[in-house]
Amino acid sequence: MSKKNLAILMRARMRSTNPTKLSLFQFPKEIPSNPQENDHIVRNSNQGIGTSSDFGNTGRSYDVVRETMHSAISASKTGVIDITLTDFQEGYFSLSLEDREKLLLALAKEYDVNREQVRELVKQYLGLETPSSDDGGQQVHSPKKEALSSVFYRIEWNLRHALKPTYETLFERLNTHPGGLRFLSILRADLLSILTKENSPSLRTLESYLKEKLGMWLSPATLELHQITWDDPASLLEKIVAYEAVHPISNLLDLKRRLGIGRRCFGYFHPSIPGEPLIFIEVALMETVAQTIQEVLWDNPPIPENQATSALFYSISSTQPGLAGINLGKFLIKRVITLVKKDMPHVSTFATLSPIPGFMKWLLSKLSSQSRFAGDDHSGSTQSNSPSSTFSERVLLPDEEQALMSLSDDSSFGSNGMEVLMNLLSAKNSNWATSPRMLPVLEPILMRLCARYLLQEKKRGKALDSVANFHLQNGAMVERINWMADRSEKGIHQSGGIMVNYVYRLENIEDYAQSYFGSGKIHASPGIHSRL
Amino acid sequence: MSKKNLAILMRARMRSTNPTKLSLFQFPKEIPSNPQENDHIVRNSNQGIGTSSDFGNTGRSYDVVRETMHSAISASKTGVIDITLTDFQEGYFSLSLEDREKLLLALAKEYDVNREQVRELVKQYLGLETPSSDDGGQQVHSPKKEALSSVFYRIEWNLRHALKPTYETLFERLNTHPGGLRFLSILRADLLSILTKENSPSLRTLESYLKEKLGMWLSPATLELHQITWDDPASLLEKIVAYEAVHPISNLLDLKRRLGIGRRCFGYFHPSIPGEPLIFIEVALMETVAQTIQEVLWDNPPIPENQATSALFYSISSTQPGLAGINLGKFLIKRVITLVKKDMPHVSTFATLSPIPGFMKWLLSKLSSQSRFAGDDHSGSTQSNSPSSTFSERVLLPDEEQALMSLSDDSSFGSNGMEVLMNLLSAKNSNWATSPRMLPVLEPILMRLCARYLLQEKKRGKALDSVANFHLQNGAMVERINWMADRSEKGIHQSGGIMVNYVYRLENIEDYAQSYFGSGKIHASPGIHSRL
Repeated sequence: MSKKNLAILMRARMRSTNPTKLSLFQFPKEIPSNPQENDHIVRNSNQGIGTSSDFGNTGRSYDVVRETMHSAISASKTGVIDITLTDFQEGYFSLSLEDREKLLLALAKEYDVNREQVRELVKQYLGLETPSSDDGGQQVHSPKKEALSSVFYRIEWNLRHALKPTYETLFERLNTHPGGLRFLSILRADLLSILTKENSPSLRTLESYLKEKLGMWLSPATLELHQITWDDPASLLEKIVAYEAVHPISNLLDLKRRLGIGRRCFGYFHPSIPGEPLIFIEVALMETVAQTIQEVLWDNPPIPENQATSALFYSISSTQPGLAGINLGKFLIKRVITLVKKDMPHVSTFATLSPIPGFMKWLLSKLSSQSRFAGDDHSGSTQSNSPSSTFSERVLLPDEEQALMSLSDDSSFGSNGMEVLMNLLSAKNSNWATSPRMLPVLEPILMRLCARYLLQEKKRGKALDSVANFHLQNGAMVERINWMADRSEKGIHQSGGIMVNYVYRLENIEDYAQSYFGSGKIHASPGIHSRL
Repeated sequence: MSKKNLAILMRARMRSTNPTKLSLFQFPKEIPSNPQENDHIVRNSNQGIGTSSDFGNTGRSYDVVRETMHSAISASKTGVIDITLTDFQEGYFSLSLEDREKLLLALAKEYDVNREQVRELVKQYLGLETPSSDDGGQQVHSPKKEALSSVFYRIEWNLRHALKPTYETLFERLNTHPGGLRFLSILRADLLSILTKENSPSLRTLESYLKEKLGMWLSPATLELHQITWDDPASLLEKIVAYEAVHPISNLLDLKRRLGIGRRCFGYFHPSIPGEPLIFIEVALMETVAQTIQEVLWDNPPIPENQATSALFYSISSTQPGLAGINLGKFLIKRVITLVKKDMPHVSTFATLSPIPGFMKWLLSKLSSQSRFAGDDHSGSTQSNSPSSTFSERVLLPDEEQALMSLSDDSSFGSNGMEVLMNLLSAKNSNWATSPRMLPVLEPILMRLCARYLLQEKKRGKALDSVANFHLQNGAMVERINWMADRSEKGIHQSGGIMVNYVYRLENIEDYAQSYFGSGKIHASPGIHSRL
């Protein structure tokens, strides 16, 4: 790497506290448009590209952008389309989030399906006889029947097209316009952000439609797998630094190590979004499957690569919040496994060391609701015959209840085990995580509850935990949970310091993915089942 | 180029009389599957790829392929899907055209839209109120209204998806499967071939659906423009030799010249169909716009490139009959013009020297039908009051009638001018084209009729001639027609030896393309108008 590139990278590091760091699984509620994109657009404007460079970037009003959007949808000359699309992107970035919302709502409503036309066609459609399944077959041809069939197929064709909203035109035009795919991803990030505060069915429909389109355009066939190394351009490495959200990259040395001996980094790239991966995965080559993230991040020096038998996926980061819910990772992991196996046949175990981002949130919410019921029932036991029992459940075992209450002897942590646990876990300083007296008491309780959370807590038939859901739908199984595996502030806060190893076995990936997809079955090792 | 490559190229030349040569505009009625593709598939089978390699390539029965097609559509595991898709492609190539037709008919009918589901949804849809255009707007939110809107959008969404035929799954899976896009193009070529003999509305619908999909997947944004030179792999150059159909490449020297000084060759490539262009264009750099193809093919040596002021597109060939009707050429020509202009700013004229493939066919059919009317009317004049006059029209001017009759003095060519012309033109030896006595008589007649054919004869509002339609929709204008511009047997046979120059003016391309698209307006020079 040249000195110049290094300098650029250093600048990138300094900036990297500024841009929103985004992981695959957690998106901030407020997603600002990527400031870098904005810079780029402003530069373009200064160069006089686009027709409206006479408008200042901030002075451009909503109405002008609204008008440009209309032109971008309705223009028919390719030259005009190109200019208006560039102009529309530029204008969009200049809008406040409020104005963007207004604009997107206008897009959703005024460029929706032409429902009068649909109703007209639907009526015609119902009036026609469905063609019998023998036209054109071995039977005698009847020209009259053929003509009727043709009419039917034509009306059906027209109906199918009439059901497409007009805004599809904008999406399709942007998809083939330079920078347009990236812009669409930002548009969707804005939509998702707006929809967390606002329930507009038409906006929700616009968002779903865009998601479907993006999923199609970013199909695995269009993505290129590329190993990211220290020889890659600094502009690309800068992105890795900025987007790595699972285990932040602390300095240049850290980055270099993650791309060096005993490590691999692979990214999925799309030709229309050059120079930055849509998703990337960091791999550590190890002798055994690591139980703690400390082993992975601090094994200096790493073992020689020819001694490695395990490939550990210790970080997967998505870079585009606007692609949330589009499973880019599935084929990534399968392809990375194939690639690593080919390169290093002696590596036979493929596992992750993953965070459990939803564990504490779920547990605290469960404890909060259940300790209320327990409060009604002054016996202090969750085994209750009180009227609220319908909703109450046994969160803690009697032993656990007792052990927790014994902790609260010296201070009044709470009136029952759940309250004690809740108060301990939600304390800001997280003292429990460094207390030699509390840790042995909490370990069996939190490990059991964590196993329950991973294997039994579901939402719409799928694992409640987003990372669990990600790996399970990709065909992994839950292998092992590890106590105090991530002692970072975030690790303690999100999952009580527990991390989980998901294991991928090539021979099972397809079966497991399918049974999870079909029936929500979560495959897990006997070891983890025994904790329940 | 290495000796080995040359040897391969020579072999390609020897084979090139064998594969069907296909131009952009004329497709043989019977399109056999590409024999090379077949070879490839057989090799795969011998290597034991796919689950059914135990079936001999020829012994594989229709039922097996039918079953594989079903699996390829209904399988849900990606591994199985991949195998069945490969297997299906292989199996398809082993089928006779009759069995392919049977298979495609099964695909069209049994994997069609689920119409019961559509009817059910349509009824639900009609029962719902269309959401008013103010939900989520500035007005007070009504949860009930929002819920109703949500239901409406969901039903509409379901209806949209229900209207997609099941065979879309096969198309989409093939599109992202290696070799699948090329296979789909062959599938469509077969469909087009079957539909010339058979009118099956369901098969027609299948074909239209596939065309729409292919058009989407091969959008200009996905195509890469690449200049083809003598340094390209022989395997690619071999394709140029094999597919050049407008002015066949006669030997290696000829090929080298078309890629050498004063010449350019550009191709559009798709990443999924590597190593062969979907369409390619040959360009000659000249001092003036050539009037005859002889000047282009035989200007040995060409003028120095820095003296060139005109770029002449003298041959455009499409390689995939299955992509007929998908306008790949539009952006090709625009981009080639831009590229050439950038490279050579002194080139200011961009024109074609194009065949008129439909002229003779149209003229002979017109003469044949009209001379029948003239035969009824024994005055020998086309100006007639006979009962058949409703359909009769004046094909020849009185002068022309007279001139033609004067030719038939020495032999009884016919009883009227049209008969004489018809007999002369349809004579197998095409003696007229070398007769010093006939040529001066025929020139003004054929040139006038040719101008009429190009500027006035239409089909569904568009130019009847396929090459004319191609260039006009791309924004060209008809500049000039040239007498005895192509003296080859094919040239005489197709267009009486006449060729046409279409001219592209960058500043007019968009306007002309649009007015042609909108109203069918054909832009032409005053010179050619004056011939009418």
